[in-house]
Amino acid sequence: MTRRIDIVEVGPRDGLQNDPANLTVEQKLEFIARLEEAGVKRMESGSFVSPKAVPKMADSPAVFAGLDRSKPTRHIALALNEKGVRRAIDAKADEINFVLVASETFGRKNQGMSPQESADMLARCAPLVHEAGIPLSATISVAFGDPYDGEVDLGVVGNLAAQSQRAGVAELALGDTIGVADPWAVRRAIDRVRIEAPDVYLRMHFHDTRGQALANVAAAVDAGVDVIDASCGGIGGCPFAPAATGNVATEDVVYMLERGGFETGLDLSKLINTAKWLETVLKHPVSSALSKAGGFPVKERLIT
Amino acid sequence: MTRRIDIVEVGPRDGLQNDPANLTVEQKLEFIARLEEAGVKRMESGSFVSPKAVPKMADSPAVFAGLDRSKPTRHIALALNEKGVRRAIDAKADEINFVLVASETFGRKNQGMSPQESADMLARCAPLVHEAGIPLSATISVAFGDPYDGEVDLGVVGNLAAQSQRAGVAELALGDTIGVADPWAVRRAIDRVRIEAPDVYLRMHFHDTRGQALANVAAAVDAGVDVIDASCGGIGGCPFAPAATGNVATEDVVYMLERGGFETGLDLSKLINTAKWLETVLKHPVSSALSKAGGFPVKERLIT
Repeated sequence: MTRRIDIVEVGPRDGLQNDPANLTVEQKLEFIARLEEAGVKRMESGSFVSPKAVPKMADSPAVFAGLDRSKPTRHIALALNEKGVRRAIDAKADEINFVLVASETFGRKNQGMSPQESADMLARCAPLVHEAGIPLSATISVAFGDPYDGEVDLGVVGNLAAQSQRAGVAELALGDTIGVADPWAVRRAIDRVRIEAPDVYLRMHFHDTRGQALANVAAAVDAGVDVIDASCGGIGGCPFAPAATGNVATEDVVYMLERGGFETGLDLSKLINTAKWLETVLKHPVSSALSKAGGFPVKERLIT
Repeated sequence: MTRRIDIVEVGPRDGLQNDPANLTVEQKLEFIARLEEAGVKRMESGSFVSPKAVPKMADSPAVFAGLDRSKPTRHIALALNEKGVRRAIDAKADEINFVLVASETFGRKNQGMSPQESADMLARCAPLVHEAGIPLSATISVAFGDPYDGEVDLGVVGNLAAQSQRAGVAELALGDTIGVADPWAVRRAIDRVRIEAPDVYLRMHFHDTRGQALANVAAAVDAGVDVIDASCGGIGGCPFAPAATGNVATEDVVYMLERGGFETGLDLSKLINTAKWLETVLKHPVSSALSKAGGFPVKERLIT
């Protein structure tokens, strides 16, 4: 039997949040519709955070209001605090993804919280989500390295995972926010989190800043993780700052996994076409390899 | 004890062979000297093939004549036939790498040989190399897929490996010439070749056309392979044809492996500086991630 790997599309949130382009609500909804057409069943469709801190997500309520709810897609809203959680519930998010942080300085700068403060905030927010009857997931950001503090203690990551389990988080992502992980660190982190939070499903969230993201995805899949975050086109970096690349590209992950014998349920051609469409609305090239190189004939079936 | 992974630098051969730039012999020798300064101990420094087919390597005899032989570097010459082997021996190559081909159509177009004809040619050439007292290695090109024929039969790859062992090849590389391999295919190919040619050391040669090269390197290292081909800057693609990317970048491999706890003996800063120097002589950007993003502080030691 073919093993299934589920990809959570984060382009409409993590991708667009960092892109210099300002898409309209209509363009964001078209992006989401194109992703659904390519088979995406679960995606981060917006973020309920301070519009001052993240201006590109200020229109998330309008995006959620405009979603086509006849589709089976589960639309995830990102939140960092109680206000965000309440706004996400009001927007009828299908799932709320809370952000924890594994390191001090990044935590202070990104969300004004230490690692423990982010866990305390999760403990306060979780009951709201549970009462609303919505699935709760979480992402531990900078789990593999902090741009200011350097190495991150796996003990902190494990501790946050344990507190996530106690808060009733169903699925936890380990986030390599700045793209410094390597495949062996990925395995160590997964092993550690499995010990500390054995009842929580794992998801991985990799950025490709140092080109390591696909290797890290492969390591995670080999370690038994079945859910991977990715963004169509690999968007999420700033094309004017070449050091800042985005999320691992959905089409590159799909190519690797489908060619490797896994099933993703996604249509590679349609993803590539969506990446090319993105270039026309973002007005700059996207970074994915598959959108440039195209696929390769696999057995009887052309992956292209 | 730290596991050592040896990187064979192929930039001066596979990298420059496909680059639109025309470097002078002096520039090529400076590239080689910079790589030696970064710790490279083994590299493909030229190719003894038809100057008509590969004009950028027509000056390989001059490059070999200009090498600083006081350095411990082992300079590898690539050859496809008896004439090339004799020329490489005359040029005092420290090692000869012969090219086998795993698929019909690519073989006909690249070197005018079928897979078996390339193995027959190896059988004829090997005694010349052994008589000259030079180490003989070989690369099986398009081992993971042929751009014309599609999938490649692992039976052909295994058979070529067995014939390589009989011909006295000490080290055999599996080449993903067109960048279509995935980590699981890498493991299957390694397993098969180990059965068919148990006495031959393995090396892997990956192109990054579909972004999969680092994932494939990690899979190979996990499977026990200790030698990896890579090109500084990731050169080897044509920057004017975005689909054609080059070899996996040396600095990206070094970052992944050193951060993963392996030892390469290479200096990441000097490799990055060499990649940046390359941009000035090639007159176009190189593709490596590390030359853009830089490293990350690892424990007490800055990998940058």
